[in-house]
Amino acid sequence: MTHITTNEHCLTLKRIGIDTHREHVAYLRRSCPLYHAEGFRALSKLEIRQDGHTILATLNIVEDESLLGDAELGLSVSAFEHFQMPEGAPVTVRQPQPVISMQAVRAKITGERLSQADYSAICQDIVQGRYAKEELAAFLVSSAQSGMDREEILFLTRAMTDSGQRLNWQESMVVDKHCIGGIPGNRTTMIVTPIVAAYGLLMPKTSSRAITSPAGTADTMEVLSEVTLSVDKLKDIVHRERACLAWGGTAKLAPVDDILISVERPLNLDSQGQMIASILSKKLAAGATHLLLDIPVGPHAKVTSMRDAMQLRKLFEYVGLHTGLQVEVVITDGRQPIGRGIGPVLEARDVMQVLNNDPNAPADLREKSLQLAGMLLEFHADVRGGQGYLLARDILTSGRALDKMNRIIDAQGRKQPTQVSPLSVSVKSMHAGQVSAIDNLILAQLAHIAGAPLDPGAGIDLHHKLDARVRKGDVLYTIHTGFQANWQFVQQFLHEHGNGYHIQ
Amino acid sequence: MTHITTNEHCLTLKRIGIDTHREHVAYLRRSCPLYHAEGFRALSKLEIRQDGHTILATLNIVEDESLLGDAELGLSVSAFEHFQMPEGAPVTVRQPQPVISMQAVRAKITGERLSQADYSAICQDIVQGRYAKEELAAFLVSSAQSGMDREEILFLTRAMTDSGQRLNWQESMVVDKHCIGGIPGNRTTMIVTPIVAAYGLLMPKTSSRAITSPAGTADTMEVLSEVTLSVDKLKDIVHRERACLAWGGTAKLAPVDDILISVERPLNLDSQGQMIASILSKKLAAGATHLLLDIPVGPHAKVTSMRDAMQLRKLFEYVGLHTGLQVEVVITDGRQPIGRGIGPVLEARDVMQVLNNDPNAPADLREKSLQLAGMLLEFHADVRGGQGYLLARDILTSGRALDKMNRIIDAQGRKQPTQVSPLSVSVKSMHAGQVSAIDNLILAQLAHIAGAPLDPGAGIDLHHKLDARVRKGDVLYTIHTGFQANWQFVQQFLHEHGNGYHIQ
Repeated sequence: MTHITTNEHCLTLKRIGIDTHREHVAYLRRSCPLYHAEGFRALSKLEIRQDGHTILATLNIVEDESLLGDAELGLSVSAFEHFQMPEGAPVTVRQPQPVISMQAVRAKITGERLSQADYSAICQDIVQGRYAKEELAAFLVSSAQSGMDREEILFLTRAMTDSGQRLNWQESMVVDKHCIGGIPGNRTTMIVTPIVAAYGLLMPKTSSRAITSPAGTADTMEVLSEVTLSVDKLKDIVHRERACLAWGGTAKLAPVDDILISVERPLNLDSQGQMIASILSKKLAAGATHLLLDIPVGPHAKVTSMRDAMQLRKLFEYVGLHTGLQVEVVITDGRQPIGRGIGPVLEARDVMQVLNNDPNAPADLREKSLQLAGMLLEFHADVRGGQGYLLARDILTSGRALDKMNRIIDAQGRKQPTQVSPLSVSVKSMHAGQVSAIDNLILAQLAHIAGAPLDPGAGIDLHHKLDARVRKGDVLYTIHTGFQANWQFVQQFLHEHGNGYHIQ
Repeated sequence: MTHITTNEHCLTLKRIGIDTHREHVAYLRRSCPLYHAEGFRALSKLEIRQDGHTILATLNIVEDESLLGDAELGLSVSAFEHFQMPEGAPVTVRQPQPVISMQAVRAKITGERLSQADYSAICQDIVQGRYAKEELAAFLVSSAQSGMDREEILFLTRAMTDSGQRLNWQESMVVDKHCIGGIPGNRTTMIVTPIVAAYGLLMPKTSSRAITSPAGTADTMEVLSEVTLSVDKLKDIVHRERACLAWGGTAKLAPVDDILISVERPLNLDSQGQMIASILSKKLAAGATHLLLDIPVGPHAKVTSMRDAMQLRKLFEYVGLHTGLQVEVVITDGRQPIGRGIGPVLEARDVMQVLNNDPNAPADLREKSLQLAGMLLEFHADVRGGQGYLLARDILTSGRALDKMNRIIDAQGRKQPTQVSPLSVSVKSMHAGQVSAIDNLILAQLAHIAGAPLDPGAGIDLHHKLDARVRKGDVLYTIHTGFQANWQFVQQFLHEHGNGYHIQ
């Protein structure tokens, strides 16, 4: 066979002002000669190269000549940023190579067990943008369905940790806490962190924003201060204050996790293995050495039985043991929301009441925070077993925790106070009795529909909690929102699902 | 709670000249007030309504004011066509409701068995465009992984059949044939159809185009005549000629299937249940009453063992029995390509050689076509068992089959002959011996890489087949292509995978 030289196809790069979220999109004119010659119309993806930079993008075909010329290749906002080349740069385009690691995904679909090399190859390909959304979904479903054994969870955790940068704090003890979620209003992190940092432990806390829930810790902290910090600024604050309360997105820790979650969340899959790998890889990448893990159990929590909680605990401990992370698991009461507020502004109010030692502060939020802080303090060799709680309480009641919180807020950039959203409606008890159950999921969805966290002042304020005696007509909770339009959805939801309170 | 009226958000419809393939995309300006007020930035999908028309679309955010105004809502080419509303029409926009049938998909992921109602709801939601690509992938993977039992396959077949229109030919016998695929050059349909139609059976044949293979029957027929026919024209031809050889895409039969395949093919999943439901729902929707199903078996075919072929046969028979479709399964030799040509022009040449009773016609293609035609003829009460083959041979050798083919070609619209693509390279045997195996998949991929079917003259012409004795340097096959650029990929592929021939 005669040798024929590579025929490279040169186009000029153009930024297209269309934000396609996480999906990288490339634009070609229908009349581009390359498009016809190369049969790209049968493709859904292109590989674009320039000067060692490579990007894979979904192909969209442009009819309109005002948007793109025949000799141009357009990239959507996120693709252009990722590609890191200036407009006008000459780029070459070719058919992407098949994604080899999808063979492992197909093996997993047929029920096979994957190796460390398989999980590493999958995570590398995902980080490089080689997986389309449907391929990400195939991986997630395959590992949710036949499940992963504990070694596979360990393999995936390592592969996810290695997919991005890893922070190194140059200290022998870096503590962190995490709750597996599902409990509205559970903002203990913003109380625990200043307590343990005031004692002197290093706790560089990064948190997520909510996507389907009414608030993540980053959303609630953002009411009080900036949370989007550069890695350098974050390090600087931690070195001065022993702690921060920042959004974790800027540090690009375990980036595979963010990509997987963007597909996993809309699918609403319940994958234990993915959850464990997701949590532990983020903590490992953030440089944690000691992790306190909160697993709330309740009829409407993520974990509904003590048996399931114990099984989950063993898996966390196993992966922690083999990745050098000391994991302490605490199983807590997840039968109802913690505190009174649900939504960023209302939750921030609860947190500051506790830190201010306000007599009206929600007792459950204060108590749970002290217990968790106590357990974290006991990681330290100087704290005797059983003394952590009392130590934490001293730090809180003396005002040292509030002082530390104010220093963190000022370091990150204090914000003007945000008000609770102006429109409100009271949900009342239809009859007298005792509150016997509260559905976390319904309250979380209601607060979300009311606008939280995008509208930080939106949410729910609880007036009665479990075991309270109420009369007919008593206000159970108040819903706050900033926009008339949301009422339609709130009403429809209440009509279809009830108000989430059981009165007996 | 006070009643608050629905606040509808009116925008003006605009067609955006961007072809996003099957994915419907909606465009909103970042500065559109509605976008901020409603928190759409957290959403990936929008529901757009006007005058009873509804469409769900993925949201892209536009920065550029030349593309879209603040009070406009843009729709991509396919979305605009699907929505069927003129530019300038006022449209309302809202958050889409959750897709209820995804609960069934999640149940399937956990290993549950689904009901007829579940499969019907899933197919309805898919046809209405409510499933995103990742949700389609989740459904496909869930039913590929834990599998579907034979009743579930029946449920899915019915649901897919009911998802679109159904043709009714007003006759008691409507025959069809289908091959489950994987064998390059296997163009028996274009010989079988004119034979049985010449006898008088009704065979309104619709076929698919290739996506990952080098040619579908529609691609090969398109070398000879038009294949994109309106449903009215197709009916007219069938009523006059008792047959057609058309592309099945225009009739919108079992449209769920097309949507699922668009995700299944790139994932390259091997899902038996999906394949059976896909094939039988298309045939039922096309109005077939009697189906001859060809399952080729060979080491590089889709089905590699007689045991698997028998199991597949039982499943086809079971679903056929319960949907009123008489299914006859024939298990054939799938050890090598059928005929000599692979790719539209080369395959069309083989077909016309057989119909012309050319002494050089490939004997295997002629023989297999006669056997299949004979079995189809025996569906008819007037044809005695065992006589079908001889009858088919009479029709072929007498020229009646050729005459019928010419009438079908003229009715559909005869085309000017297309030449084999100009660039060619010969792949030679490296040593002397006997051809002991031919890898279907490698030849199919090579022909595809050479440009088939988009370049109809591209493909492979086989000079030697199984059991042939070859000398060193004998040409095994010739690769044809129209474009220099494809050589690079062909060479790389040959280097990595070999030429597909085993010589012993």
